[in-house]
Formats: sequence, structure tokens, C-alpha cells
Amino acid sequence: MPRLSDTTRGRILFGGDYNPEQWPEETWTEDVRLMKDAGVNSVTLGVFSWARLEPEPGAREFGWLDRLMDLMHGNGIGVVLATPTSSPPPWLGRLHPETLPRDADGRVEWWGGRQHFSHSSAVYRHHAAAITEALAARYADHPALTMWHINNEYCTFDYGDEAAVAFRRWLRAKYGTLDALNSAWGAAFWSQGYDTWDGVLPPRHAHYLNNPTHVLDFRRFTSDMLLECYTAERDLVRRHTPHIPVTTNFMPLWVGQDGWRWSEEEDVVSVDLYPDPRDPLGAQSAALVQDLTRSQAHGPWMLMEQAAGPVNWRGVNHPKPRGLNRLWSLQAVARGADAVCYFQWRQSRQGAEKFHSGMLSHAGERGRTFQEVKQLGAELARIGGEVTGSHITSDIAILHDWNAWWAGAQDGRLSTEVEYPEVLRAWHRALWESHLATDFAHPEHDLSAYKLVIVPQLYLLTDTAIDNLLAYVRAGGTLVSGFLTGIADEDDRVRSGGMDARLRELFGIRTLHEWWPLDAGETVECEGLRGTLWSEEIEPEDDGVDEVIPYKGGELDGLPAVLRKGSSWYVSTLPEPHALRALLARVAAEAGVRPVLAGLPSGIEAVRRGELLFLLNHSREPVTVELPGTHHDVLTDTTAEGEITLGRYGAAVLRP
Amino acid sequence: MPRLSDTTRGRILFGGDYNPEQWPEETWTEDVRLMKDAGVNSVTLGVFSWARLEPEPGAREFGWLDRLMDLMHGNGIGVVLATPTSSPPPWLGRLHPETLPRDADGRVEWWGGRQHFSHSSAVYRHHAAAITEALAARYADHPALTMWHINNEYCTFDYGDEAAVAFRRWLRAKYGTLDALNSAWGAAFWSQGYDTWDGVLPPRHAHYLNNPTHVLDFRRFTSDMLLECYTAERDLVRRHTPHIPVTTNFMPLWVGQDGWRWSEEEDVVSVDLYPDPRDPLGAQSAALVQDLTRSQAHGPWMLMEQAAGPVNWRGVNHPKPRGLNRLWSLQAVARGADAVCYFQWRQSRQGAEKFHSGMLSHAGERGRTFQEVKQLGAELARIGGEVTGSHITSDIAILHDWNAWWAGAQDGRLSTEVEYPEVLRAWHRALWESHLATDFAHPEHDLSAYKLVIVPQLYLLTDTAIDNLLAYVRAGGTLVSGFLTGIADEDDRVRSGGMDARLRELFGIRTLHEWWPLDAGETVECEGLRGTLWSEEIEPEDDGVDEVIPYKGGELDGLPAVLRKGSSWYVSTLPEPHALRALLARVAAEAGVRPVLAGLPSGIEAVRRGELLFLLNHSREPVTVELPGTHHDVLTDTTAEGEITLGRYGAAVLRP
Amino acid sequence: MPRLSDTTRGRILFGGDYNPEQWPEETWTEDVRLMKDAGVNSVTLGVFSWARLEPEPGAREFGWLDRLMDLMHGNGIGVVLATPTSSPPPWLGRLHPETLPRDADGRVEWWGGRQHFSHSSAVYRHHAAAITEALAARYADHPALTMWHINNEYCTFDYGDEAAVAFRRWLRAKYGTLDALNSAWGAAFWSQGYDTWDGVLPPRHAHYLNNPTHVLDFRRFTSDMLLECYTAERDLVRRHTPHIPVTTNFMPLWVGQDGWRWSEEEDVVSVDLYPDPRDPLGAQSAALVQDLTRSQAHGPWMLMEQAAGPVNWRGVNHPKPRGLNRLWSLQAVARGADAVCYFQWRQSRQGAEKFHSGMLSHAGERGRTFQEVKQLGAELARIGGEVTGSHITSDIAILHDWNAWWAGAQDGRLSTEVEYPEVLRAWHRALWESHLATDFAHPEHDLSAYKLVIVPQLYLLTDTAIDNLLAYVRAGGTLVSGFLTGIADEDDRVRSGGMDARLRELFGIRTLHEWWPLDAGETVECEGLRGTLWSEEIEPEDDGVDEVIPYKGGELDGLPAVLRKGSSWYVSTLPEPHALRALLARVAAEAGVRPVLAGLPSGIEAVRRGELLFLLNHSREPVTVELPGTHHDVLTDTTAEGEITLGRYGAAVLRP
Repeated sequence: MPRLSDTTRGRILFGGDYNPEQWPEETWTEDVRLMKDAGVNSVTLGVFSWARLEPEPGAREFGWLDRLMDLMHGNGIGVVLATPTSSPPPWLGRLHPETLPRDADGRVEWWGGRQHFSHSSAVYRHHAAAITEALAARYADHPALTMWHINNEYCTFDYGDEAAVAFRRWLRAKYGTLDALNSAWGAAFWSQGYDTWDGVLPPRHAHYLNNPTHVLDFRRFTSDMLLECYTAERDLVRRHTPHIPVTTNFMPLWVGQDGWRWSEEEDVVSVDLYPDPRDPLGAQSAALVQDLTRSQAHGPWMLMEQAAGPVNWRGVNHPKPRGLNRLWSLQAVARGADAVCYFQWRQSRQGAEKFHSGMLSHAGERGRTFQEVKQLGAELARIGGEVTGSHITSDIAILHDWNAWWAGAQDGRLSTEVEYPEVLRAWHRALWESHLATDFAHPEHDLSAYKLVIVPQLYLLTDTAIDNLLAYVRAGGTLVSGFLTGIADEDDRVRSGGMDARLRELFGIRTLHEWWPLDAGETVECEGLRGTLWSEEIEPEDDGVDEVIPYKGGELDGLPAVLRKGSSWYVSTLPEPHALRALLARVAAEAGVRPVLAGLPSGIEAVRRGELLFLLNHSREPVTVELPGTHHDVLTDTTAEGEITLGRYGAAVLRP
Repeated sequence: MPRLSDTTRGRILFGGDYNPEQWPEETWTEDVRLMKDAGVNSVTLGVFSWARLEPEPGAREFGWLDRLMDLMHGNGIGVVLATPTSSPPPWLGRLHPETLPRDADGRVEWWGGRQHFSHSSAVYRHHAAAITEALAARYADHPALTMWHINNEYCTFDYGDEAAVAFRRWLRAKYGTLDALNSAWGAAFWSQGYDTWDGVLPPRHAHYLNNPTHVLDFRRFTSDMLLECYTAERDLVRRHTPHIPVTTNFMPLWVGQDGWRWSEEEDVVSVDLYPDPRDPLGAQSAALVQDLTRSQAHGPWMLMEQAAGPVNWRGVNHPKPRGLNRLWSLQAVARGADAVCYFQWRQSRQGAEKFHSGMLSHAGERGRTFQEVKQLGAELARIGGEVTGSHITSDIAILHDWNAWWAGAQDGRLSTEVEYPEVLRAWHRALWESHLATDFAHPEHDLSAYKLVIVPQLYLLTDTAIDNLLAYVRAGGTLVSGFLTGIADEDDRVRSGGMDARLRELFGIRTLHEWWPLDAGETVECEGLRGTLWSEEIEPEDDGVDEVIPYKGGELDGLPAVLRKGSSWYVSTLPEPHALRALLARVAAEAGVRPVLAGLPSGIEAVRRGELLFLLNHSREPVTVELPGTHHDVLTDTTAEGEITLGRYGAAVLRP
Repeated sequence: MPRLSDTTRGRILFGGDYNPEQWPEETWTEDVRLMKDAGVNSVTLGVFSWARLEPEPGAREFGWLDRLMDLMHGNGIGVVLATPTSSPPPWLGRLHPETLPRDADGRVEWWGGRQHFSHSSAVYRHHAAAITEALAARYADHPALTMWHINNEYCTFDYGDEAAVAFRRWLRAKYGTLDALNSAWGAAFWSQGYDTWDGVLPPRHAHYLNNPTHVLDFRRFTSDMLLECYTAERDLVRRHTPHIPVTTNFMPLWVGQDGWRWSEEEDVVSVDLYPDPRDPLGAQSAALVQDLTRSQAHGPWMLMEQAAGPVNWRGVNHPKPRGLNRLWSLQAVARGADAVCYFQWRQSRQGAEKFHSGMLSHAGERGRTFQEVKQLGAELARIGGEVTGSHITSDIAILHDWNAWWAGAQDGRLSTEVEYPEVLRAWHRALWESHLATDFAHPEHDLSAYKLVIVPQLYLLTDTAIDNLLAYVRAGGTLVSGFLTGIADEDDRVRSGGMDARLRELFGIRTLHEWWPLDAGETVECEGLRGTLWSEEIEPEDDGVDEVIPYKGGELDGLPAVLRKGSSWYVSTLPEPHALRALLARVAAEAGVRPVLAGLPSGIEAVRRGELLFLLNHSREPVTVELPGTHHDVLTDTTAEGEITLGRYGAAVLRP
């Protein structure tokens, strides 16, 4: 199987999406000059080129792309070649309106934007396969080709009639019989029992709440349909180029794809990452995605898209202050990226994203943005040989499962204040601020390599997953679980007692009387900490619990907020950031997990990748860091003894 | 005519919706054991059983229900049997998509939730009648049957084509001629004159404001169509069981049904009541609904649904703290309920309401919720004989009319800050906090039994209603009216002068120059009080007014905020809570109305029902109440002399 | 060409929309009596009379209108006769549903409100022409007829199928070839290249951002289609009455019509103006519209609609305090209005606008509103002869272009906090508060008459416009430009360098590195002022700039916030109100522009129209104003020497 290293070959990939069809060919020459100036060694071509390649049905216009492929190759720039299937040409919708998706309200998603295709449409799939096949056949042997990029940010839902047919097929394959479906969906509730498969629709707009298992299965179905689109194209290109790795780019922590299943189907795991330059926790939310993506990839991964400056899809789109693009790029490398790429090379002058920055922004070559890009390109070239292919070791795993998210995020739940991604971020933040390296894992993964496993919130857990957790603890592992974990089985059926009995026993919970969700902004006092978002009325086992942090005051006074039984911890509220950090730091220490570096000043992130120690200063003031002994900074080719000072947004890549 | 007492027979009904089709039959045995343990004497079966009873068109599966009816009867538990027509099986929508409602935007309300039926659909009505007939025929003579429960929480609108046909039929019956319709609707405005009946549609999405009388009539039509659905099923079951009372459950103070007309068609008036456990005025908003429901019933009524713990449809769904379920249940009894029932007996494990609590919650038998339910069941059994059938006497009536609400709540009104239910709550609160017992009445009802009549806001008043008010005052009654009263006639035509001339004369208003609605959060100073929400520029009659509280400062300085002429009061703003309380306490005293008990400490609610005095402590601290003489607490079988101490959320039911 | 003066003939028109079809004929008699009492000399008939005039297709009922025309004429009241085409009768939609517009989501806009017509519908246009023709033929020679009022507040969009056909026709006419369209739209982005004209649709709901040039052209198309509707009706009436002026009423600063193009097609420019009585800047926002309307009219204009009291379409609709109606009416006259009219004469008792005030409100003749109207009518009659036809001179022009607004207000821009109308208001306010008279102009207009030209924000500028600005400065003019100016060309193509190079050179900007939009409520410190909304990272030309106000602190510390090069100023943030006022006052003074009057106290507005000096007191306290010498107040026929005191909301109209 081809891998990312087949493309990187010892260099960090540096470059980005390149959409030369927006520019006259004379601009291409300037592009190449500036790419070389900036150290660009990889561009992604063709992401949105369908209408250019196939301006009318069946037509083929490859000449311009031939010239580009040759131009890139002639200048030593590799090409990640995209299938253009995320944005069909207007003629597809015009001739085949059934390829257009519909939302739950029945609204058509017309062409004129992008991603206006139904994953379930046979006509769409047919045309997507044809253009993919033509591309693969034409460029299979082109020396510029280094990777395949299938589609782009898969993210379409469809509630229309063809999707309904596909959904039924998917459900038949899953359930076999209607009785099984009716049972799994609890269709006895609200008189929802189906008597024919034809009665099943996507969960369209209803008078009142839709059936949650129906919605859950529809999300699984959607992920699977999109995955079918992906694998169909992947298999086509693979047949032509078995040696060339294939990827598709994820959006960060996006709700719609089961990332664990998807990444298994990729040779290279890639992600698009756009933290808000104004977000004080932007670096942490990026670190989370980086850790997750690396875990999906089981090693080095590709940063397919980031922005050199502002994006254009927030309410207010801030540029990156001087140094931030470099800092966040090095952070990605520190956390496993072997490719630092952008959307896009040259900022567009027209179209819906003309205010999304490029490596070469509207200000052009003299602009600060390009100047910083150029500096970064040089630095990445310097460290590439030492970095690429190397791995990161972590003693901690955070468990995450899209199925749990999907099941827990439904209408009719106890609290709309509980947002799964926010809970995940809160727990990851506590580790990140403590410099505790962490992986992510699926709850059914082998966890034996970890000293500490953290479950921020897995509302849905299969029996296999529960057995896995129990076995992990039994084998000596330390487990910390947040609330709303183990509530439902894989059909979103609430487990007896409101929480799985095996887990209750594991944590020493005799009876879970009531959930006490907190209002927005409300907090709950506990012994030595303050909780947010949630609390619970728990009756612990008599003599079954080794340690308790009780609630203080209010209705839950004296009841356990946090319970420990052996090496299993249950945290029934979300402690405030510093309290969760302190709690996890203690648990980690007891589990024998040590931070990357001790005694780090605030604002500094430390990551060890392979032999190298990355130090990143996320603050706007210079910070001095004490170092254990002498290190060599491979960015600056200088030696640091005992300490190193990082400027504002500064970074060091140190070899001990 | 059968009545609630035919079902209660001296006991307070205690139980709830029971949906055993969600559970295997072995669970039914456990259910019966626990029901008996908890003192349950009534369950509601079949509310959402249509797909189970008729799994495909015309099929009939009654065996499971036969066994349940026998099981209930064998264990002394009566059955409120529901027609399952609020949630048609998927096959109805699949085979007859025209039965699905459409909203004003044209969106279909698909099956997959509940209540996806058009009230106007002939096909729906046909199928609903058939299953109702089959149920009634089968169980007419079953000894478990104690009441019929038609449909559930009627609440569907429909703007589709079949509803359009029905709307036209309704309008023809009302108006006879298009000229009459055009005149009533003021169709000369904006060129809306209809030349054919076919031109009339439901008030669908329009470019700008819809005609308000059109919208008003559509609301009346909707209430009437739903009522037709109800009476059709009622008449079917009545033919089989003339001796069994019939009900349908209202949602509390719900906008869509004209409750006065509906309750006339019921043998038992029942309501679902879900105050927010976190709402500091939850008990008062419950008391309002209880007073209204009792007034609709002209006596004892049925609490059909409440929650033993949290519901699942708020943003954040709080459980009931220890004692609150009991307290609020006893409050319902105090205010006339002869039935204390829940949605639902056993909390669902699947479906959209699995986080809505049950009497038997996820925590099961050991859970606090069930333990409290069990205690309550025992207490209700103890007091049932003394309570059921007894009445409540009140010297005050609050006037309420759905038509006034509908007409006043339209787009294009002067202030969207004025919400009718909030105004109603504000006035009721002032009486509730003063321990002044109150009924509700329709403005055309005979008011002669009352010493004080309060009109919080009746934007629309018919001539008959105005005559009724005038006659009431003429006969010596005291009347207090809030603003926005008597503005429009029954067609929503603004009365000359902006307010009915007879009412202006009654209150001593010569000219109502302008309405001065207040912004959100804005207040207006008056002599001795502060007003909210509204103010008015009124020129009083010369020498016509007996008493005035003037506005102070601002544009209205010196003009009357409150006017009294004889025993008629007009209040042109909404005084802050304590000021409205003081004003009404004074007026009540002058009208000879006395509170249930004088000198009560804060947090205590006192209600007299028949011989019994209910004392309810809504605070979380123990409170001591002085009593006039010796009382016997029938809950505890103890004697209280001169005073009684009620614990947190405590209650006493005292016989003098 | 007929003009407004043909209708005014030395009087200020005073009156309003009159909808007598809502009332019995006996009310008409009373109306005439009260109109005469109030000095009404003009009413607008027929705005919403289509269903009355043509109750079924092809029918004609003119008798009632004949009687009204005669009645008006007999009482010396002129008639502005409206074509009733803004609200088709129900039969049009019923018989021809294709005349109903659809929004971007595909929702039909049904009849039942108003303006439910598609501008592109051939059937609608046919019926509109027929009723217009019939009206024009019938009343061409009626002596009451003084002006034609075409339709009403044109404002409909349509995304339906017939609009799609018209849009394609419009695009073909504009672009000639698909290649030209694809190039202008930047269709290479996101694979949007069209291969057939049939592929082009209105910019309907899409999965993600629509193409901005597509949206821009659709706005232009919509304005043009509506204009076609207008000119078609105008041409019909003109054929019958070449001597009678024609108008259509604009909504104030409304986004949907290119006002510069529209006003060229009108004999009389008229506008509807409804400032919020509670808005502390209500008078300024009115002044802006008045200045703009006067500039569109190149002289006197018509205030077609205002409210004597509250409107009914805000959330909370406040009445006008005593005096405000008069004050704001005189303000309109001061700024060029020769007509002061209302919606509407008699407040409706029915329909969607029955809480929109009238000159004769619900309170009737005794009501304060009517009494104030009557006083105003008398005053306008007194000053009419001195005022009508006179002009206002201004040395300043604010540049405004709907195309720039449309292009800049799209999704996917850098900051949704930047709202074009608010920016325009902020700059106009700075002049208004400094008593600097200003016109508005299109950026391609001849600017040579102005000493100072201000560009608050012209995101889109054509090459012609840029040349115009350069020539203006070259000829000695002073130019002040706000940020986001000159960014895009007429196809919304970002100009090289992110801002037009000629403009950058004009202002001394070498490189515009990055835009730094500010968050809501955020400010940025500059030397001596504080900026809001926006900031920019600008590198000025070496030695090219004559004056700089730098940013202080933060990322932009020391970089220029404001640059002056010669007489060209660039302001890269929005200074806080007092700072912008001070800046513009200084620039104006340096450019030789003087305020209307110096040293005016706060709250006073001073306007010179012809010979007359209007002084308006917008405060609620009396204010004394010093006057240069003796003046005669034509309102009161008194003499003011050296000073004059204006009461609360008072006004004086002074002849030197």
C-alpha cells in the first residue's frame, strides 16, 4: 500500500491548492517563479475543474492541464491531483435535476455554489466515475503525479426521493427484516411501526420530534453513502496507479463522517484546519484536530488546507498577525504533519472566496503574507529531513466515537447546553495545558498501550466497547470518564438503570437517581472545585468507592460529584478548566504519565516528535524556557544551554 | 351525562399513560406489581397504539390489548382507553400523502414524529373513525373501561389544499355571501376583495402582512376542525358506552383551541400540566391553569399528564427536587383536581421521549422518583374520600377569551412586547400572591355570582360581551380592566375612537389620543407605582372620574394612568407585580372579597376546597403558619392548634 | 417634460393616501369637511383599488372613483392618481399562479398580503397594462388629476421559472456571449462555467455560498425588471396625459432599486419616510434620505408618505410626541420637499395596517394627532409661496452607488459587521452635526461644482468612476475616502493589490498588506482618535504622504490609520462620531466650505433653502440661537433680532 512517505520522500510537503484555470497562462509563469521562491514543492490541481475539463457532457479538455502538469514537473513541483467531483458543472443539474440534494424541508440545493450533488444519485455517480476514469487514465504515468485527492470536504446530506431509496437499501442490508428495524428504532413509541420498507423515509421535517434512532441511522447512512462515493473513485484511480497514495480531505472534527471508518480507507489521512486567529484557544483546538488526525493516520498525516491569512466564512474574519502562520504551521509538524499546505496558492480575484487569503494574497509578492510564507518554506525545507516519518509517543488516549456524538446530539435530549465537541475540547484542553501528550482512540480499539484512558463523553457505547473498557481497567489501566457515558446501546436504547450496569459497578455507582443538567452559565460547588454544565444525583455503593469529591450545598449536597473505585474515575460534572487540569494532572501522575517537560511557563506548548522537542510560544511576549541540558535548534542551527528564549509567537525545534 | 365522579367513585385517580407495547409481556407483570405498590388505580392505554392495533390497513390486532385490559381489571386498576388517532401509522401517509399537513410555507409535515394528520382530511377521518369504532365495539363492555380519552393534545394546523376546501366550506357557513366575508375581512384594504369562494386560501406565506381577520378566522376554523375530529370520535364511542365519560387532554393555556367551546363537548375536562421546576413562578402558572381548567369543568377536573421528574422538550430539563412532585400534585387537588396522573408510568427506553421522566424512571424501583410517587399514592388514597367531588368557591372572576387572544396576537400590532399569556399571568399572579381565590370566565358568561371581575386584556369584545360587562357593573359589580381591552369587534374591526365608546364612558375616558407602548425593559413612573409594557395618552371626562392615579414625568405627565369611575377601574399600564398586587388587594377589599387566610407568610399558598384548607409551602425552608383555631391534618392524622409548621415543599390538608 | 411645480403651483402639497373604498360614502362627506379644515390640497387615490376597479377579470367599476374625483375637484383638492398594480386582486393569482413570486427557497408568495406579483410575469404585466390604460383613458381629462403615482413601493424579488427566463434574456443582452458571462462571473472558480444559457438560474438556495457576481447581476436585473414595470405604465399614462407629471414612491435608502437610474425616469421624485420617533438620530437619518432624494430630483421633491403618529411594522411602535410631526415635516421642506404627505388620511379600521396612524387617527377629530395636522396644514399654506421651487446649495457631495452596496453586501465578505447603510449614515451624520450642507452624487457624476467630495465606502468602482475621482482631485478638489473603497471593478473582480492602484497612488498607499476588521464593539486606538469597525495594515509610499494619523498600540502600532496626500484623504477605520465630525470639519474648513451657521447650540439643525433659513430644534428643551442680524420668521410673522428662542421641537423659517 502506498503511503504518505512515498510522496514526501524526506521533505515536508509545502504548497497548496492551485487553481490556475482562474488565471491567464502568463500568470502561471509568475506563479512558478514565486512558488520556487517560496520553496513550494507540492500543489493540488483540479479540485474545482470539472466544468473546465468537461465543459459539456462527454467533452474532454485536458490540454490546459497537460501543460500545467508538465510545467510543474519541469520545475520540480509535485502534483496532488484532485478528482473534480465535489462541484459538478451546471449542465449536470440542468440535465439531471434529480442529482441535486434536498434538505429536510424539501428545499433543493441548486447549482451556483458547490457540492450540489446527491451522494445517492446514480447519474451523479456515473458522471463522477467517468471524469475520474478519464483523469486517471490520462495522468497515470505523468511524472508530476504524487498523490490523488478525491473530491473535496465531503459534506452533503440528502433527504430526497433517490436518497430515500438508497436509505431503504442500506437499512435492509443492516436489519434484514422490518421487525428488526422496528425493534431497533423503538417504533412501538408514537405508533411508528413500519409495515413495508417503502414506508421508510429520510427523517424529513415532522410536526414534532423525529425518532432518534431513525435520525442516528440516517447519519450513519449518510457517512456510508459519501464513503461509497469516495471508495468508488479511489478504486478507479488505484487501478491505474496502484503505487500512488490516495486521500480525501476532512474538515476538522466534522460531524458528518465517521472518521475512524473513513481513515481506514485512505492511504494518506489529510485534514483542513482553520483555527480562528482571535480565539485564545485556537492553538488548542488545532492541537486536538492534529492529535485526532494523527491517531486516524497511525502516524504522519497531511495538513491539506490552512489559511495563510484570513478566511472569509466567519462573521468577522481576522488576518493572522505576524508570526502566527509560521507558529501554527510548526505546531502541525510537531504533532505529526509531514505536509503543510494551504487553500490556496494565489488568492482568487473572483468568486465566493475571493476574500479567503492565499499564500500569495491580493497584496502580492511584497505583501507581508507572502514574505512570511517564503520564510516558512525555507525553514520547513531545513527541518524536513529530521522530521518526516517520525512518530509521537503518548501514554494517554482520549476516546472518541462519531456514533456517540450522533446519538447524543439529538433533539429531545436533557440539555441543549451540552455540546459534544465542546466537552471533548474541555478534556483535551486540560491535557494540553498540562503538556501531556495524548492520542485519540475508538472505544473498541486496543487500549493496552496506554497508561491512562479518558472518556470525555460517550453517550452511546456498544457492548464490545464496554467490555473493552472493563478489560483495560482489569489489566491495570487507569480510566477517567465524564458524565453522559454508557447511557445508550448502539440502537440508542437507554440501558437499564439509565447507565450501563457494568460501568456503574466499575465506578461504584449503586443508583443514578436523576441527571441534573445546569443552566447556561450556572455552576455547582463541589469540595475543592466548581462544576459546570451538568450534575448528577448519585447514590454510591456502600463501601464500594475508594474516594469521593462531594457536591457542596444545593440539592445534591454531600452526594458524590467525582468517584474513584480502584483506578476508575467517574466525573459527574464538567469541572472548570483549572480544576479539570489539576484533576487530570494528578491522575496522570498516579498512572505514571509524565508531561513532555515539567515547569513550563504559561503560553508555551511542548511536543516531542521522534527525537525532536518542539517548543512553541503562543503568547505575544518573549518567554524564556528552562531546558534539561544542551539542545541544538535545527531551525536556527544554534545551541541552547540550559534555557532558550522564544520571541513572540516564536518556536524552536530542538535536538537534545 | 356521565361525569368524572363516575370514574373516581370517591377515590382520587392516580396513575398515568401506560405504553406497554414498548415492553415485553414479562415487564407487564412487574409493572402491575409496582403499580399496586404505588397505589396506582388508573392507567391510560392506547394513546399511541394505532400501528400496533392496525399494523396494515384494515388489519386488527387486539389480542395484546385484550390481555392488558384483563390484567388491569384483574388487579383493580381502571383503564382510561384512548383512541390512537393522534399518531397515524406510517402506512396512512404512504398510501395517502394528502392526509399530511402542510405549514404556511408549504412544507409537508411527514410521518416519523407524531400528529402528522390533517384535521380536514376525509381519508384521515375515515380511518380514524374505523379504528375508533373497532375499539369501542370491542371494549364497550369490558369491566376495566372507566373513561374514553380521544386522541391526544390536538394541535395541528394545516395550510394545504384539502384544508383550503374545508376552510371555504366553513367560511360559507359563517358568512353566507362573499360580500359579507369581504366586509368582515375589510378586504377593500390592499385590494383583497374576493370574487369567488375558490379564491380564498388559508393564510399562507405572503410577501407582507396577511389580512388579520383572515388569520383570525383561520384560527377559529382550525379550532373548529379539530373539534369536529374530536366530536366525531366521541359520538362513536358514546353510542357504544353512553355511561362512560369522555375526555380529551388539553395542553395548558394553549393558543390553538377555543377552550370554552371545547370543554362544553367533554364529560370530563382534563389537562396536561408541566411547569418548569426551575421557574420561581412555576406554582403560580400551574395555579392559573388549574383555575382555568376547573372553570371550564364547572367543578372537579382531571390532571391527565404531569411529569414525575424532568421533561425533555425544554432547552435544559431539570428534575424535580425532593418533595416537589408531591407538593405540586397536592396543589392540583387543592384547586379541584380529582385525578393526578402522569405521562407516563414507565419511562421509555427508546424513541423521542426517552428522557421524559416516568413514575418509574430509568433508575427503577430504587430510584428516588418512584419512591416519592409511592408515598404520594398512599397520601392521595388517604384523602380521596374527603376531597373528591368537592367544589371551590370564589368571589372573583378573571375574564379570558381565546378569540381576543387570537385577534390581539397578530403581526402588525403596536407592540410585540405585549404577549397575552404573560399579561394574563401577571394579573392572576397578583391575586394568587394575595390568596384571593379566583375563577375564570368567558366575557359573555353570567357574572352575577362574582363580587369582582377582572379583565387583564380583552382586545376583542363582542357587543354581547360589552353589554354583559355593563350590566354586571350596573348591578353593583366591581370591574377592573387592563389596557388593550374593547379595541376591536368580533371581526377585528377597530371600534370608533380606538376603544368601544360604552367602555370609555364606563371608565370615564373622553378621548384616547394615542397608545404609548413601552420598549422592552422600559418603565413608566406613576403616582405611587411604576408601570411596564404600555402607557396611554388619555383625556378623561370632565368631572366624570372619581379617582385618578396620574403618570409622573415624561410625555404623559399628569395624564391618568389609572382611572376609577364608580366601581369601574381602568389600568392603562401594567403595574409592577407588587403594585398590581396592592391595587387589586385594595379593590378586592372594597368589593368585600377576603383572602383565603390573612397574614400568611411569603411562599405559602392557601386554598379552600370544600371543607378542607390546603396549605402549601413553595419555599425550600420550613415555614410556620398561624391558624385560626384547631385543625386536623388529614394527611398525617395529627392535630394542629393555633399554628402548623410546614417543612420545605411541605403541605397540610386541614379539616377545621 | 412636466415637473413637480406643475402640480404644486406655488403651494406645498399637503395631504396623503386616501382609501375611501374602505368607508361608506357618508364618511366621504365628513372626510372632505375635515380635509378642508386641515388645509389638505392633495390626496392620492387608487393605490390599492385594483380589486375594486376590476372585481373580476375584465370587469370595470369606475363609478365610485368618478364620484370621488368629482368630489375632490369640487372641493379644490387635487388628486394624485395611482395605478393599482402593486396589489393584484385574488383572481389574478387564482387564475394565473405563475404570476406569484417565489423566494430563493422556492416558497410561493401567495395573495392575501400585497405585492404578490412577479415583475417578470407576462400575464401580470398584461393585466397591469390593461387596468392602467383604462384608468388613464378615463381620467386623462379630469380636472382633479394632478399627478400619476405608478404602483407603490416596488420591492419584489422573484426566483421562479419565468424570472429565470427573463434573467437569461437580460444577461444575454448584457454579455452577448456565454464566454463573456463566464469571465465576468469568474465561473472558473468552483466549476461554475456555463455551457448553455439555459443553465443559468436566479441565485437560488445553494449548498454553500452563491457566486457573488451572479448575485450582483441578479440585483441589477431585479432593479431593471421593476423599472420596466414602472416605465411600461408610465408610458401608457403619458400617452394620455403628456402634461401630467409621473412618479413612483421610493422606500428610503432601499437596497433593491438603483435610485440613480430610476429617478431619471421620473418627472417627480418621491419618497416614503418613516424615522423612528424614539431614535435619537431619527432626524439625521431623515435628513440623509432628504438630501439623497433631493439630489436624485435635482431640486424639489415630494414626501409621498410619512406617519402622523406611529407606524405598525416595528417591534414597538411609538407615537410621535407633541410637535414632532410638525418639526419633521418642516425639516423635509427645509431640505427641499415641496410636498408633505402621509400614509394615510383616515386611519383604517380593518386590515393589516389598522394600527398605522392616519392624519385622522382612531381618536378622530378631537384627537391630538388631527389637531396637530391641522395646525401644520395652516403653517405650510402660509410659507408655501416663499418656499416652493427654491433650491439648496451645497459645496459637499457624498458619493453613493447602489451597485457598490450590492457588491459589497454579499455573503463571504470579510466582516458582516460592516453594513453599508450604517457607514453612509455615520459619514452623513458627521456633516449634519457640523451644519455642513451636503448633496449626494453618483461616482460618475460631474463633481466639479463641489469643493469637497466624500466617499464613505464605494467597494465597487468602475474605471470611469475612478477616472472621475482622479480628475476631480487633479482639478483642485478635496477628496476624503473611507475604507473598502475601490476594491472591486464593476464585475466585482478584486483589483490588483486589493485596492485600485490609481487610488492607492492618490492616497499614498504603497502596499495594502491586510484588512483588519474589528469585532462587534471593538475599537482601535489612533493618535487623537479612536476607530471602530475596521482597520488596515498599510505600508505608505516613501515620502509620498503629507500627513499621517497613526494607529497606536496593538498589531498596527505606528502604521497609518489616516493618510493625506495633497488634498486626498484616506481613512482606514471608522472614527468614532465626534472624531469623524472633527476630522471632516477641519477638512471642510481647509477646503473653504463653511457651515450654514456657526456656533449653533447642540440639538439645533440649520438649513438654508433659497433665501430662507430654517432652524429646527430637535431637543425637548427650549434653545436660544444667536442670529446674524435681523430676520423675519415667516411662520409667525414676527421679527427676530440677534437671537431667537425655539421651544421644544420648535422651528423657525427666517427670511434675512
